[in-house]
Order: sequence, then structure tokens, then C-alpha cells
Amino acid sequence: MANLSLRRARTIIRKAIEHGRANDMKPLSVIVLDEGGNVQAFEREDDAAPGRFQIAHGKAYGTVMLGMAGTAQMARAEAQAYFIAAANGAYGGNLIPVPGGVLVRDAKGRVLGAVGVTGDTSDNDAAAAKAGIEAVGLVAEI
Amino acid sequence: MANLSLRRARTIIRKAIEHGRANDMKPLSVIVLDEGGNVQAFEREDDAAPGRFQIAHGKAYGTVMLGMAGTAQMARAEAQAYFIAAANGAYGGNLIPVPGGVLVRDAKGRVLGAVGVTGDTSDNDAAAAKAGIEAVGLVAEI
Amino acid sequence: MANLSLRRARTIIRKAIEHGRANDMKPLSVIVLDEGGNVQAFEREDDAAPGRFQIAHGKAYGTVMLGMAGTAQMARAEAQAYFIAAANGAYGGNLIPVPGGVLVRDAKGRVLGAVGVTGDTSDNDAAAAKAGIEAVGLVAEI
Amino acid sequence: MANLSLRRARTIIRKAIEHGRANDMKPLSVIVLDEGGNVQAFEREDDAAPGRFQIAHGKAYGTVMLGMAGTAQMARAEAQAYFIAAANGAYGGNLIPVPGGVLVRDAKGRVLGAVGVTGDTSDNDAAAAKAGIEAVGLVAEI
Repeated sequence: MANLSLRRARTIIRKAIEHGRANDMKPLSVIVLDEGGNVQAFEREDDAAPGRFQIAHGKAYGTVMLGMAGTAQMARAEAQAYFIAAANGAYGGNLIPVPGGVLVRDAKGRVLGAVGVTGDTSDNDAAAAKAGIEAVGLVAEI
Repeated sequence: MANLSLRRARTIIRKAIEHGRANDMKPLSVIVLDEGGNVQAFEREDDAAPGRFQIAHGKAYGTVMLGMAGTAQMARAEAQAYFIAAANGAYGGNLIPVPGGVLVRDAKGRVLGAVGVTGDTSDNDAAAAKAGIEAVGLVAEI
Repeated sequence: MANLSLRRARTIIRKAIEHGRANDMKPLSVIVLDEGGNVQAFEREDDAAPGRFQIAHGKAYGTVMLGMAGTAQMARAEAQAYFIAAANGAYGGNLIPVPGGVLVRDAKGRVLGAVGVTGDTSDNDAAAAKAGIEAVGLVAEI
Repeated sequence: MANLSLRRARTIIRKAIEHGRANDMKPLSVIVLDEGGNVQAFEREDDAAPGRFQIAHGKAYGTVMLGMAGTAQMARAEAQAYFIAAANGAYGGNLIPVPGGVLVRDAKGRVLGAVGVTGDTSDNDAAAAKAGIEAVGLVAEI
């Protein structure tokens, strides 16, 4: 039962949003991508800015396509901005290289997909994603 | 309480999927866009093809941006293919002019957004969207 | 005093909208482009669909860039769909080849720009554009 | 009467332009987007450069889609250029992260849309937008 079913995706999103509410975060938007980088589920909380889908998607998309979570992407962008800019071009502009893009792994370390959260600070976004992922017994790489 | 809240969007998606299951449809993917054409919520059932987000999005996006549901778009495409092709260009290629893109109106006729369903036949997709919309007491224009 | 000033553009838009109201048309969106094909003014009436800018723009843009009004573009699309499709590609997808894109000429026949109207039937859209253009003493080529 | 009607959009644009003239600014271009990021009204003053629509649009579009006004976008771009560059990619290149993109809120703080002004210095552009927004009794977040 390794894959990231819709049932699990729903729970990840709900728990990430609950984490945001419990910690007084701003309204969150949460996406779950499967291991192929394709959209499985998404929710935007009321009062979030209308364009949050694109940001959540970009955080998760780069994460799963590069196999590199948001924190690592940001470190790479700080060290070598032209690499991340070039990768972004190669992915059609669909990459947001900051925390809040989180890899989802099973207990054996296999990547099952990625979660993208946006709305609060990047670090809080990542913490909300982690809370959601751990709620379904999977491993979050921030 | 006119707007299409996340609470309502969730119910629309669940009821559309339940309708699909109750009628032995193939796995469905369901999107809800707000009145500005921005993504509010999306779910893809297990075993649906990976690229279903883009199809569900295109059905709903053209519907809300043109204020014209999928059935009317298809009729226009049959009568005047170059118009729909051109409109698609104007919207960046984000328009899928077939049934399954359904306008959401309140009791007074005001457009609150659109639902896009894909996975089964276009007519079945539209019926599933309608079931979801009516489950929250709103009016579906197929 | 040949050019299409903002003062004239405003009057064209107001008179086109008044024409629509006087004739019980649906809510209109009206754009004025200058002789270079660049946006000078635009208004979308309340209750028009949100994506009407792109349609109004496409009608006017093809009109001024090709020097061919919407009716002539539509005739060409009927006769030779691949030409209009190819022109559309060359213009980045920004061409809507139906009536409602109207050339604006001065008394000597010089093109000053184009008006694009969308919201009602294509023929009514063109009539509204004509009413606006004639209200400032210029010549409309539908 | 919370929404940003065409009546209000017209007044915002006129008052922003009057503010520019009263303060000897260069010719201004002013756009109003609704809460979904869609174009509601636009005017470009005579003698403004022809491509001002795209700049005004980009200032307002990023503002409403991110829920973050131009000044805050510029601060983020100064601190973390790759984030703003990436967000721009996610929005199809339609983001101009400098002052002159101004959020429009009602008295309760709800976002009703955004105004984008371009033509003079970025700070003057923002002041003109603010003058227009306050003229209709709404709140400007610069």
C-alpha cells in the first residue's frame, strides 16, 4: 500500500489546514502531487489570495520533479541562482524554490509525491505540510 | 452567504464523485473554480489518468471566463470552429469546449463559479457536476 | 486632429455601452486600440463574464494588425480556416476573427485604430462599436 | 454594495489621472482589476508610451493574485530575487513587482481588487492609485 491515494491526499490537506488554524497562520492553500508530478488534490482556504494555486503548485512541482525539497532548492538558489533559473525554464516556469515544497516518502525512503503549502511564512508553510504528511504515517523531507 | 466557500466546494466535489460511483462511471476528476476563474478545490480519484487536472480545469475555466457552459461551447465549436479555437488562444490554450464544464449560479442567477468534471463520457461528466452543485442548493447550467 | 485621443476613446466606449443598453443587449465589454494595436481604453459592464477583456482585445487586435475588420476576417476563416489559424499563431493567439472587431477610419480613410465589442451576438456587438465610432464623427468599417 | 463596480472603477481611474495632472506627473496609465484578477477598466493618457497597458496590468495582477501590494513585492524581490522571478514564471510572466500596484480593500479589510498605475516614478504612481481608491471611499494598501 505504498501509493498516495486520494484518501491519503485528502487527509494530508485537512491536517495541514488544521495545523495552520491551530497555530494562527494566515489562510493556507495546500496541494498534493503524485510521484509523477501530477495534481491529485488541492484546497484553498477562504480569504486566501486568488492566485495561491500557482504558488502551491510551483513549490510542490519543483520538489517532485527535481527530487529536491524546497529548503534544498532555496539553498541552491542562494548559491547558484542561474541553475535554479535555468531549471525553471526547463520546467516551463513552474518551479517556486522556497520552503513549503515538501517531499513525501514512505518508510523505505521511496518518493510518493510532494506537498506544496503557501499562505504564511515559508517556514510555517513547510511545518503545515509536514504535519499533514505525518498524519498519514509518511515521512516529510522539508 | 452567496459566495462559493471552500466548505461548499468540498461538498460539490464529494457529491459529484459519489454520483459517479453510484452510476458506475469511470474514476472522475472534479475541479471547482471561483467567480474569477481561480482554482478553489480539486480532487482526482484513484486510477484516473494522471493528466486529468488540465482537462477538468479547461472545462471549468472556459465556462466561467466566457460565462458559457460546456454544452453551449460545444454547440458553438460545431457551428463555428474557428471562433472557439481563437478564444482558446486568447485564454492561453486553457479551454476545453465540451460538456462537463458547468456554470454555478445562485437562486438569483448570479454566477458564483464553475465546476469541471472529466473521466467518463462528457454527458455523464456534466451529470456528475450537476449532482454536486445541486447538493449545496445551487443551480447548475450544463 | 487625426489621432484617437483618450477623450475620443472614452466617448466611443460610453456611446457603445449606451447603444447596448438602449437595445436591450447583454452586458458589453468595449476596448479601443490605437493605430499601433496598443490598448488605449477598456471597460467591462457589471455582470459581464470575467474573461471578456481577452475576447474584446482579440477582436480589435486582429482588426488593426491585419487592417481587416471582423466581418472580413470571418469570411476569410470560412473560406480558408488554415490562413486565419496561421495568422493567429503569428500574433501569439491574440486574434478573434468574428464581427465585433471594427476598424476606425477618419474622413480621408486613414486607419486610426480599432474597437472591439463582446457580450451579445457578434452582429449586435459590431453595431454597438459602430454607434460608438460614429458618435465621435469617425467612420466604422464593420 | 461591496464590489468594485464599473461605476467605481471609472471614478478611481479619473481621480488617479486628475491626481497626476495636479502634481505635474508624466502621462499616466491606470488599470482596475476585480478580486479575481480580471480586467475591469483601463485608460492610457495621451502621450504615454504605447506599451503601458502591460506594465499597469502586471503591477495590479501580481498584487491581487498574491494578495501583496507593490511595495511588499519589491521588498521581497530585493531580499529574495529568485522567489519573485519564480512567482512571475508561475503567473505566465504577468507580474511587475514595484510600487504602483495597490490593493483595494473595503472598510472590513476584504480585498475587492487592485489598481495598477504606471508612467511616473513608482512612488508617484502609487500615490496616484491611492488618490483614486480613496476617492470612492475604499482603503488603499500601497
